[in-house]
Amino acid sequence: MHTPDPELLRWLRPQLLEQIPLARAMQLDIAELDAERVVLRAPLAPNVNDKGCAFGGSIGALLTLSGWSLLTSRARSAGLECGIYIQDSQLSYLKPAWDQLEAHARIDGADVQRWVLQYGARRRARIEVQSDLYSGGVHAARMQARYVALPL
Amino acid sequence: MHTPDPELLRWLRPQLLEQIPLARAMQLDIAELDAERVVLRAPLAPNVNDKGCAFGGSIGALLTLSGWSLLTSRARSAGLECGIYIQDSQLSYLKPAWDQLEAHARIDGADVQRWVLQYGARRRARIEVQSDLYSGGVHAARMQARYVALPL
Repeated sequence: MHTPDPELLRWLRPQLLEQIPLARAMQLDIAELDAERVVLRAPLAPNVNDKGCAFGGSIGALLTLSGWSLLTSRARSAGLECGIYIQDSQLSYLKPAWDQLEAHARIDGADVQRWVLQYGARRRARIEVQSDLYSGGVHAARMQARYVALPL
Repeated sequence: MHTPDPELLRWLRPQLLEQIPLARAMQLDIAELDAERVVLRAPLAPNVNDKGCAFGGSIGALLTLSGWSLLTSRARSAGLECGIYIQDSQLSYLKPAWDQLEAHARIDGADVQRWVLQYGARRRARIEVQSDLYSGGVHAARMQARYVALPL
């Protein structure tokens, strides 16, 4: 568990679980959180489809929230009073997921710095995040998504 | 309500609501179903985000299920014993959704016919579906997704 800022983790968890009912229905949890990476987890049972593997919509929602969680944490750390919105995404389903779901989102520190500066200058800043879904050691899906920070 | 085959609707509803727990959590319902079109609905409340509008992951899941529902119905009508899997999707969030969610998926009868023939010949057939998300008269999101039919 790499969590340089436990206060940030204590702040983020209720943002997800109390404000987004679907995150609660998915039984999502934050497994790791640091400045450049977040790992979200969810058990398979509440996220299955008719075939018994993970429902594509659950995979997409978990990947969407992984990028959102990372950016929301970075914005708070930088003191930005903004909301983070997803703008578009490309999602590839690579293999069926038959086990616990893990979404890994990663951003580069230099990209975040540019994003924070741009928001300061324009009150609107976009950034891309790649998120990957693993399940039982299998790389099951990959998402490339663009998010925008806007004033609240 | 355009439902030429009420038996198909009676068959599809439990496929969604009993086999996919997230569809139940979203309080999804089938509003329309015919050979070339499906409309799925979900209320906003179980699908909100931290800002009080629709969560992007709920929008993606509803759009994913709209294409899946249409193809699953078409496969059953054609007597194909297959599973329908999403392969990839491109999703654009156009406007925030502040009201009940409606996902409209549409396919062309000629495309379906080719898809059914291809599955018969190769036991594997791909098809693209476009789905649109409307909320309170606003066109809130658009998804282009590719699905594949594979033997069960």
